[in-house]
Amino acid sequence: MIDHVEAALSSIVGAGHVLVAPDVRASYETDWTGRFHGTARCVVRPASTTEVAEVLRVCAAHAANVVVQGGNTGLVGGAVPSQGEVVLSTTRLRWIGDVDPIAAQVTVGAGVPLSAVQQHVRRLGLDVAVDLAPRDSATVGGLVATNAGGERVLRYGTMRRSVAGLSVVFADGTVASRLSGLPKDNTGYDLVGLLTGSEGTLGVITEVRLQLVPVLRSRTVALLALSGVTDALSAMAVIKSRVSILEAAELFFADGLALVCDRLGLPRPVPGGHEAYLLVETADREDASAPLFAALGNIPAEIVVAEDPVARQRLWRYREAHAEAISAVGIPIKLDVVVPLAALTEFVAQVPSLVTKACSAARTVIFGHLNEGNLHVNVLGAGGAEPAVESAVLEYVAALGGSISGEHGIGRAKAAYLSLSRTKEEITAMRAIKRALDPTGLLNPGVLLPPG
Amino acid sequence: MIDHVEAALSSIVGAGHVLVAPDVRASYETDWTGRFHGTARCVVRPASTTEVAEVLRVCAAHAANVVVQGGNTGLVGGAVPSQGEVVLSTTRLRWIGDVDPIAAQVTVGAGVPLSAVQQHVRRLGLDVAVDLAPRDSATVGGLVATNAGGERVLRYGTMRRSVAGLSVVFADGTVASRLSGLPKDNTGYDLVGLLTGSEGTLGVITEVRLQLVPVLRSRTVALLALSGVTDALSAMAVIKSRVSILEAAELFFADGLALVCDRLGLPRPVPGGHEAYLLVETADREDASAPLFAALGNIPAEIVVAEDPVARQRLWRYREAHAEAISAVGIPIKLDVVVPLAALTEFVAQVPSLVTKACSAARTVIFGHLNEGNLHVNVLGAGGAEPAVESAVLEYVAALGGSISGEHGIGRAKAAYLSLSRTKEEITAMRAIKRALDPTGLLNPGVLLPPG
Repeated sequence: MIDHVEAALSSIVGAGHVLVAPDVRASYETDWTGRFHGTARCVVRPASTTEVAEVLRVCAAHAANVVVQGGNTGLVGGAVPSQGEVVLSTTRLRWIGDVDPIAAQVTVGAGVPLSAVQQHVRRLGLDVAVDLAPRDSATVGGLVATNAGGERVLRYGTMRRSVAGLSVVFADGTVASRLSGLPKDNTGYDLVGLLTGSEGTLGVITEVRLQLVPVLRSRTVALLALSGVTDALSAMAVIKSRVSILEAAELFFADGLALVCDRLGLPRPVPGGHEAYLLVETADREDASAPLFAALGNIPAEIVVAEDPVARQRLWRYREAHAEAISAVGIPIKLDVVVPLAALTEFVAQVPSLVTKACSAARTVIFGHLNEGNLHVNVLGAGGAEPAVESAVLEYVAALGGSISGEHGIGRAKAAYLSLSRTKEEITAMRAIKRALDPTGLLNPGVLLPPG
Repeated sequence: MIDHVEAALSSIVGAGHVLVAPDVRASYETDWTGRFHGTARCVVRPASTTEVAEVLRVCAAHAANVVVQGGNTGLVGGAVPSQGEVVLSTTRLRWIGDVDPIAAQVTVGAGVPLSAVQQHVRRLGLDVAVDLAPRDSATVGGLVATNAGGERVLRYGTMRRSVAGLSVVFADGTVASRLSGLPKDNTGYDLVGLLTGSEGTLGVITEVRLQLVPVLRSRTVALLALSGVTDALSAMAVIKSRVSILEAAELFFADGLALVCDRLGLPRPVPGGHEAYLLVETADREDASAPLFAALGNIPAEIVVAEDPVARQRLWRYREAHAEAISAVGIPIKLDVVVPLAALTEFVAQVPSLVTKACSAARTVIFGHLNEGNLHVNVLGAGGAEPAVESAVLEYVAALGGSISGEHGIGRAKAAYLSLSRTKEEITAMRAIKRALDPTGLLNPGVLLPPG
């Protein structure tokens, strides 16, 4: 049964790109974690900015709300339909422009996966500053819409800093393009920065101009086994005071490491008995000398250093395999929080018992990005008690002056908790901006801003 | 004669801080360049965020428009009154908080001059990332409101990247504070980034949380005398490909250097005959070794290297004294533009004759920040022909795909030219945001957005 909207959409993108059959829609209606799902009116797959604009004009004319979806790798349910929205999939916006070697920039379609851009630009000695595990699926548009983070935020910031420009289609079908990529341009409001991280609620991002960074080949990875969070923070401070080329400082713990070693059959990286593990990586040009990690003052630590690519990758595996090892046990609740560094030791000590109080069967595994105090709190075995666990952890984070999302965003998962991290006045201002750019609430209803 | 508004404002801030006498108002009614002036209804000097909120509520109730003024060092007339507005001076918002050494952040009042913050934090081995010549007058609030740049943008970006949080009072007197300074916080729209660079048109910034950077003491300055812009670009590319610690790459030319040497009685830094001069500075931790600037491949260059502070300062003087030497000749038109690097050689070659065509008596001196293609085009002797010179240069910049402002902003000076750098659709979106946050247009009318 094709209604007016589907017919009009088909005339824009071709009937083959308006998906209405339930089995074809299915993969667009559930997120990859399986936690979020809903029903789509249809899925529409435009292939250009112009088609996106026409699609939005049709949807606006029929008051058919729209959910924007990239690679569907989000963790907060921000890209799946809820109540019969049209899913606008960006995956056909899949072109990559020529690299501008002088500016170190490239313009790509929003639907291009991160890894495709990486391959394209690395041949020229350039790289995308942001990198994360789902690089083969996660689209550039999605990374921008969610202001993605990852393991190199310490050096390069989150996605916002890598966005040199973009094209956006607003809810009324108006297209605004800002793709010149000038490294300085102080001519009015930062629309590009505002759209970055707006989670599809202010407009559909269709093209992105990326500021690239040089590929840095002189790399050293060190894994430090330490007595706890406090020493990890001290060690990071020592290292930061010595080197300007630090790129990552990843934290994990004895329980997570044990899980990784058991599940993946890896040997322990150092003899046991340590509580906290800090993985640091420095990166510089070819001719840089490797920094010394040996002397950390009075901080007791076992240190393993790796310089060749294989050995470096082996150390990284202990950190990166956490998600995989945890998922092998069960479907976790994944809470992505930021805690002020001064409160980090307390947070890590208290959270497991807080979780157990909310759900006695639950088990907590923590890892994350130390420099930003951005921890991924994974809770296993909390089936049925998700809301209790979520609110216990998020309210504790808020009480410590932290944030309920470091990099995953708000989506549908945390919209109800937004007031834990943003004041009433900020939310009022955000709503005013939403109304200004999307007066009828056509785009991603229920995402980011709580109903109200 | 005190009217209702002044009486109400006096009851908030005290009669001594509502300036109505013309001679007392005078310094607030003209910018320091003498190019922009107007009449203020009065000048009000609130001493806290709460007082700012009450001031704005009174002004809103009486439909008395407001112009926000910090150190009054702007270059585009964005902080001086035009038609009888109330001038809200932030200079009593002058407190400095304790430095958070773990996060490397400090919260300060918007009216604190940059140099006061620098003195405060340098004792702790920290620094403000942005630095610029009017540091003793320019206020932190003004730096944020205008998204200031300066000489270290290459390494640290413009002011926006240093703003870890702020408090703002919106036009209706609502206060929104976001001062936790979390290094990652992905919870909705980037209001802080939006307000940065909004030139006082969306709200009054009253407090700023600054992300600081380490003081880097291992410094090398090199002045390269080169045959022209193309070689300067090539030399910068070589240097950037070698070092990750480059902090500045400043460009100037034979005519500007001659002016500086003549006016300040300085010796030539190298024997003459070169067209372009590139001043680069690297900075790193104590123990870093100085990078080598000697070999630049096939690029012919005379190179002077300075490592000790006095010698470094001596080289910097050739660049920094440009503004002073130019002002000693006359009041220049100062155009702050960005040109794509690929068009830079052409731009520098063409602009002087373009200016002469608009005004035969005019003389052009160019200097600026090479990495961003951000040039300060100073035009002397164009009295009476300002509009012709301005539009000739700005239209040429736009034709090359550049920007009409790299760091000074739009203000009143360039509002009429905004459409040269922003599309109709972008300006429509900016107007929608302005209406959303300041529906009656109370704040800085005529600044940034052209009437329409």
